[in-house]
Amino acid sequence: MGRTADYSKERCSVAATLEVVGDPWTLLILRDAFRGVRRFDQWQESLGVARNVLAARLKTLVAHGVMEKRRYSEHPPRFEYRLTDKGKDLRPVLITLSDWGDRHVYGENGPLHFLHEPCGHKLRPGLVCMDCGEPVAPRDLRMVHNPDSQTVGEALADRELLEAEG
Amino acid sequence: MGRTADYSKERCSVAATLEVVGDPWTLLILRDAFRGVRRFDQWQESLGVARNVLAARLKTLVAHGVMEKRRYSEHPPRFEYRLTDKGKDLRPVLITLSDWGDRHVYGENGPLHFLHEPCGHKLRPGLVCMDCGEPVAPRDLRMVHNPDSQTVGEALADRELLEAEG
Repeated sequence: MGRTADYSKERCSVAATLEVVGDPWTLLILRDAFRGVRRFDQWQESLGVARNVLAARLKTLVAHGVMEKRRYSEHPPRFEYRLTDKGKDLRPVLITLSDWGDRHVYGENGPLHFLHEPCGHKLRPGLVCMDCGEPVAPRDLRMVHNPDSQTVGEALADRELLEAEG
Repeated sequence: MGRTADYSKERCSVAATLEVVGDPWTLLILRDAFRGVRRFDQWQESLGVARNVLAARLKTLVAHGVMEKRRYSEHPPRFEYRLTDKGKDLRPVLITLSDWGDRHVYGENGPLHFLHEPCGHKLRPGLVCMDCGEPVAPRDLRMVHNPDSQTVGEALADRELLEAEG
């Protein structure tokens, strides 16, 4: 499936996330990272993606601070990629994507599930408000617009500056 | 950004969801649907996407049972698109995507936030296990693989048959 979209001119936090990780290979690279993959060749084997595409996606993830590249061997020089805290914060995105596919594409025979060890159940994830702990019901949410917000492109450019200064 | 990926041969619920809604325009179409957009021209105006692209994406969403097409006027014949229950189940995906972009791209000045009316706080969504109600901590999850699962393509084909048999 070919894909083209320009998110940079949107004023939207969904588009902002997609601008950073919305590339399809990128989401699968992150999925693998959450399962412990750290090395180029492991991703290549898992995804069967062209080396130049994989290299470009990892570079972008490092540039956005979602992953960091570390040398784990001096001779020969070898590198691994690890999720940063910012990257680890994508876990709920991956879990909710996985849950929907599990229920609505695979039915009850998905390729993998998560066991929630403290209670022993297969994980069915739900969203709660972290302030009051109550489940998030659509009728309880009111959208509040911010008239002064930037476009995705502007916000990313500012953030790059911040991190370069930081 | 150009995108190409084939999810159909993956055995993975994340890839399964992406096969249905992972197209970038599709995720923004769904975002708008959650905000009340129902008509072709409203999406066209919101997204600035080519009419043929939008038409193709809506058709795919209807084919997958994520949206339904309803006639709302007889003369002239006019149609609207509404999220089905299966489509509404994507809300957690959109909320987690939005939350990450809000925190990590926009910082604290995002274009929109959700007010959680029962408690009056700006929504910070968290994931809980729906069985025990406890927050989902990474260390509490154990992956369980199912050796007999289908590929995404096979699962989608079966589901189509199921739905056709109704």
